[in-house]
Amino acid sequence: MKAVQYRRIGAAPEVVEVPEPEPGPGQVLLKVTAAGVCHSDIAVMGWPRVPFPLPLTLGHEGAGTVAALGDGVTGLAVGEPVAVYGPWGCGTCARCARGEENYCQRAAALGIHPPGLGAPGAIAEYLLVDDPRHLVSLGDLDPVTSVPLTDAGLTPYHAIKRALPVLVPGSAAVVIGTGGLGHVAIQLLRALSPARVIALDVTEDKLELARNVGAHQTVRSDAGAAATVRELTGGLGAQAVFDFVGAPPTVALATAVAGVEAEVALVGIGGGVAKFGFGGIAYDAAVRVPYWGSRAELIEVLDLARAGAIDVRVETYGIDDAPTAYERLHAGRVNGRAVILPGG
Amino acid sequence: MKAVQYRRIGAAPEVVEVPEPEPGPGQVLLKVTAAGVCHSDIAVMGWPRVPFPLPLTLGHEGAGTVAALGDGVTGLAVGEPVAVYGPWGCGTCARCARGEENYCQRAAALGIHPPGLGAPGAIAEYLLVDDPRHLVSLGDLDPVTSVPLTDAGLTPYHAIKRALPVLVPGSAAVVIGTGGLGHVAIQLLRALSPARVIALDVTEDKLELARNVGAHQTVRSDAGAAATVRELTGGLGAQAVFDFVGAPPTVALATAVAGVEAEVALVGIGGGVAKFGFGGIAYDAAVRVPYWGSRAELIEVLDLARAGAIDVRVETYGIDDAPTAYERLHAGRVNGRAVILPGG
Amino acid sequence: MKAVQYRRIGAAPEVVEVPEPEPGPGQVLLKVTAAGVCHSDIAVMGWPRVPFPLPLTLGHEGAGTVAALGDGVTGLAVGEPVAVYGPWGCGTCARCARGEENYCQRAAALGIHPPGLGAPGAIAEYLLVDDPRHLVSLGDLDPVTSVPLTDAGLTPYHAIKRALPVLVPGSAAVVIGTGGLGHVAIQLLRALSPARVIALDVTEDKLELARNVGAHQTVRSDAGAAATVRELTGGLGAQAVFDFVGAPPTVALATAVAGVEAEVALVGIGGGVAKFGFGGIAYDAAVRVPYWGSRAELIEVLDLARAGAIDVRVETYGIDDAPTAYERLHAGRVNGRAVILPGG
Amino acid sequence: MKAVQYRRIGAAPEVVEVPEPEPGPGQVLLKVTAAGVCHSDIAVMGWPRVPFPLPLTLGHEGAGTVAALGDGVTGLAVGEPVAVYGPWGCGTCARCARGEENYCQRAAALGIHPPGLGAPGAIAEYLLVDDPRHLVSLGDLDPVTSVPLTDAGLTPYHAIKRALPVLVPGSAAVVIGTGGLGHVAIQLLRALSPARVIALDVTEDKLELARNVGAHQTVRSDAGAAATVRELTGGLGAQAVFDFVGAPPTVALATAVAGVEAEVALVGIGGGVAKFGFGGIAYDAAVRVPYWGSRAELIEVLDLARAGAIDVRVETYGIDDAPTAYERLHAGRVNGRAVILPGG
Repeated sequence: MKAVQYRRIGAAPEVVEVPEPEPGPGQVLLKVTAAGVCHSDIAVMGWPRVPFPLPLTLGHEGAGTVAALGDGVTGLAVGEPVAVYGPWGCGTCARCARGEENYCQRAAALGIHPPGLGAPGAIAEYLLVDDPRHLVSLGDLDPVTSVPLTDAGLTPYHAIKRALPVLVPGSAAVVIGTGGLGHVAIQLLRALSPARVIALDVTEDKLELARNVGAHQTVRSDAGAAATVRELTGGLGAQAVFDFVGAPPTVALATAVAGVEAEVALVGIGGGVAKFGFGGIAYDAAVRVPYWGSRAELIEVLDLARAGAIDVRVETYGIDDAPTAYERLHAGRVNGRAVILPGG
Repeated sequence: MKAVQYRRIGAAPEVVEVPEPEPGPGQVLLKVTAAGVCHSDIAVMGWPRVPFPLPLTLGHEGAGTVAALGDGVTGLAVGEPVAVYGPWGCGTCARCARGEENYCQRAAALGIHPPGLGAPGAIAEYLLVDDPRHLVSLGDLDPVTSVPLTDAGLTPYHAIKRALPVLVPGSAAVVIGTGGLGHVAIQLLRALSPARVIALDVTEDKLELARNVGAHQTVRSDAGAAATVRELTGGLGAQAVFDFVGAPPTVALATAVAGVEAEVALVGIGGGVAKFGFGGIAYDAAVRVPYWGSRAELIEVLDLARAGAIDVRVETYGIDDAPTAYERLHAGRVNGRAVILPGG
Repeated sequence: MKAVQYRRIGAAPEVVEVPEPEPGPGQVLLKVTAAGVCHSDIAVMGWPRVPFPLPLTLGHEGAGTVAALGDGVTGLAVGEPVAVYGPWGCGTCARCARGEENYCQRAAALGIHPPGLGAPGAIAEYLLVDDPRHLVSLGDLDPVTSVPLTDAGLTPYHAIKRALPVLVPGSAAVVIGTGGLGHVAIQLLRALSPARVIALDVTEDKLELARNVGAHQTVRSDAGAAATVRELTGGLGAQAVFDFVGAPPTVALATAVAGVEAEVALVGIGGGVAKFGFGGIAYDAAVRVPYWGSRAELIEVLDLARAGAIDVRVETYGIDDAPTAYERLHAGRVNGRAVILPGG
Repeated sequence: MKAVQYRRIGAAPEVVEVPEPEPGPGQVLLKVTAAGVCHSDIAVMGWPRVPFPLPLTLGHEGAGTVAALGDGVTGLAVGEPVAVYGPWGCGTCARCARGEENYCQRAAALGIHPPGLGAPGAIAEYLLVDDPRHLVSLGDLDPVTSVPLTDAGLTPYHAIKRALPVLVPGSAAVVIGTGGLGHVAIQLLRALSPARVIALDVTEDKLELARNVGAHQTVRSDAGAAATVRELTGGLGAQAVFDFVGAPPTVALATAVAGVEAEVALVGIGGGVAKFGFGGIAYDAAVRVPYWGSRAELIEVLDLARAGAIDVRVETYGIDDAPTAYERLHAGRVNGRAVILPGG
């Protein structure tokens, strides 16, 4: 079968032919319908070393139909459309026992990796899934616009869900970076909370997208942005801040606009470092670096899509054009999310 | 000044002339702009005994402008428009220290009563407020449509806020009774949660109102209602149920449609009694009888109105017509909330 | 192998010889070390019909050592001592995705039952476990005193955990029934909260046990008990009430002693029915019927035992004496928990 | 009356004679029984500028008996022993409406300051309190050992309370700095949670105090401390970290030992700055800078003391010796908390 692989440190991804996998006991084989292309793949491909062997089939956002069931697997039918929960864990530690496999306590020790980030990924004709618990039924959802929800939806959902208790009426939520994750985050905030959503980005067309998907107010992300947000929040700062860029200036901005007891999530992995102590941040603002989300949260994100509350903007590519999709993403030329259709 | 009083057990309310009150140290005098007429007044006027002396000036929903400040009062300006937080407490017990004066631990012992439910109420030209902490600034909000929020908004808000953690995407919330409180509750649920809202009432025009203010689905509240709601919720039941009627059949319905870990609030005081044990209700469904709300919750409700998320339907009356308003409410002929305008 | 079975409606359990099970793909075979005898078995054996086929091997509290692994099972070693999480679910629904398999949304539809309550149970020489996720490593914990924690520990832990936010300093927790579950609940409350623990039971020796395991105060559970508890709580009532009896008088007592916003858990299945409406219970007290607990909660209970915070009182029996253990339990002659040692 | 004042930037505090204050409407005059001496006073006296006018009577921890009531004050009796809630706010903003006056949204704008930190403080013979809501009845509690609870108890209580949901069985809590606040924090953690408490400080006698008040394990706070704590927590890190020093090395240590979803509170104002981004801290660890606590939390701390769960170590001084107490504290020669007895 065809697969898109990262084969050598620093090299561009390639379309290669690899053997079709077969499901062992307890495993599930998917015929891939759609797979998302993510900025974090590009970040990983820029690292001088990776924490897993190469070559690696890329793709940590995957959707497909069940192609074959390993021995002992029940409760799934061949042909059923499913989405893949990506942050695989051991399934039994205290974290996995709550479905928080993104924070599995033993994955590193056991060498368990997510598909596309260590295990063979979803940008291929077939994907081997280690356990049926890592699948969520899609039902009637369109796999093409839904597949980004497994990361670009789940990651902001996880961060936003934690902030909901402070996003009471009268509060403000700030979204920094309105791209793949950010434009979903704005919609999640509108669907889940009564907060006023203030979106920040560097170009007018990105801010227009932000307004189109529901931002109440948009602010150019420049040197004066912190002061503008403070003013828009009556001097109190925002109750939640989500930085999907994570670069040095955005991280500084994120902590600067946080109000008392705000939730601040540094989601983007742009190399920024938060710096604060007494007097340098609003009291009891919580600054965190979250990672992906839990199994239950993925179910909830997909239920929200089912209710029509999320409109993910996608560009689609055939598998042979996946390297092109990575190039365009790297160049900042993708609108919303790039999705590979291996069967198309 | 004119005041509308309940003077003798069982008698109808009367418009009478009483002395204008003067604010003592720490008190605030309001010129009443608007005052709400509530079903619970009618319930109280039906009791054979009341827990406070008569005559009583009615009205526990009040809004006005500051007319005079007692000695030592700061932070308020004469002429400032305000809404009154009604469930007055001692201000210092463990509950009041969290602003939950509706659950003051000492109010009964100290003889502290809400205005209109023991203390002189808001259906009068002037209202004496015991402490500035019981006032919330209205700013630009219309006092006429906002005054019902102090009870008909705050009471459902309090009940709904507790349920928000279980009202995740994919969940359902049931509202029984779509009148004064219920039609606000539907709007609150839509603004605060992604839950599907299922509204129940006994007539088609009430169900139409429910749909107009945002209910996703409406169900005639009859013998088959529980089965219908079960079916609409995929057999799982609802994650939250709010009974604004509280009569025997609605209370039975409320517990019957609750799903696992549902929040069930019996808000209406229609004499119904919940009856359940092992096997008779979904596991871990919480059945509660709430009362009014906290000071912070009133601020949040008014902030939600400020954001344009609540449209309270009102009928207005001059103070001389307040007895008529009570009659019409008793007869079920008020649409939304009846509001008295003592200055109008 | 030997197994203790409930074979015919109304009959006493019998020791019988059955085939030793073999683990299929994804399954785990345990050599049973210890299995608990529970009141609920006796309740079920008193029902005129049961929701599963007979004969049934009893025992829903189990501990053992891994005897054999089915195909595809990893992360477990033969010989490893484990405890069994009993309330098995489908593993993939929204509840199971959080490890709340006790509230699995599909177990009934799929015919999934806990061991000893539908699936073959733990009072046998070997126990087949459907998935390794249903096992928790025991490490150095004594399986004999730990096995009751899988139900008699987990069930109260689940109920208590929910109440912890209201069990602040100055609060009171009431435990009704100080037997198998109740004497563990008292210890859990002491370890997990600063609440004052008030224990109620009908005999002085039970109250003495309650004091020995940590109750601050004990009250004879009779007609005057509610008034006594009210007085002990300064007239405010308790912030949490756990009824491990669930009979009509104890359920009435449980709701009568609840304070504002109390958590009231009706755990025992003694046929009692809670009855309350407006005016009949403290405001916002939550009355619930919980069932067992989650996977993460079982891990936490065992961690608490590891810290030395729980001392479960047990009586041990060989497998041939299991019917005697049931008889003694029925007669109220077991102190703490009866545990069967199939290998002893 | 005598008062201990900070009179000129950089000067030592002095005992001076000032007029005895008189309570205006709504105010309360206390005869001071005991007043705490705090490190933060010394920090403030080291600043080149202060945000309030001098001279200033010091003391933000105060306890006394009611000496006189201003007009309109009810619910308090002359002679009643009380403790003072220090972080005064406006009483009406959204924060104050929840009793979180430590985070009042208008205090700065209105010029409201805590006693001893802007308003005349408690190290004087009499203290004027602006509102009875800032008093908590002491009852039988010893004012001398209780007065430090108003800050040295309340501040760690506030930080710990937020962490309780993650301090489940099997978790670990790290306390850095076992002095005035830290030795109380250890006791609070033991009373409120089942967490293992690991205390760090720089000298063996401080670590001995930590063990005496309940720390399970103690670690010398040096370059190897982070590795030691990681090892003591099975490589997972701690679920809560409280840094009562706040100096550069302790802040770095605090973030280094935090586990996934840990609560990290930087309480001490020692000039340290937290620095972290993706890869530099455990996922979803929340780093915060808290300040003091809420009115309800003070009530809870005092209730915990009433239950005998807190043993505050104090050294007492007459008012004339207050300057000496400050000197000794500055020199690190105070064991526990220094308390001034103005009437002694």
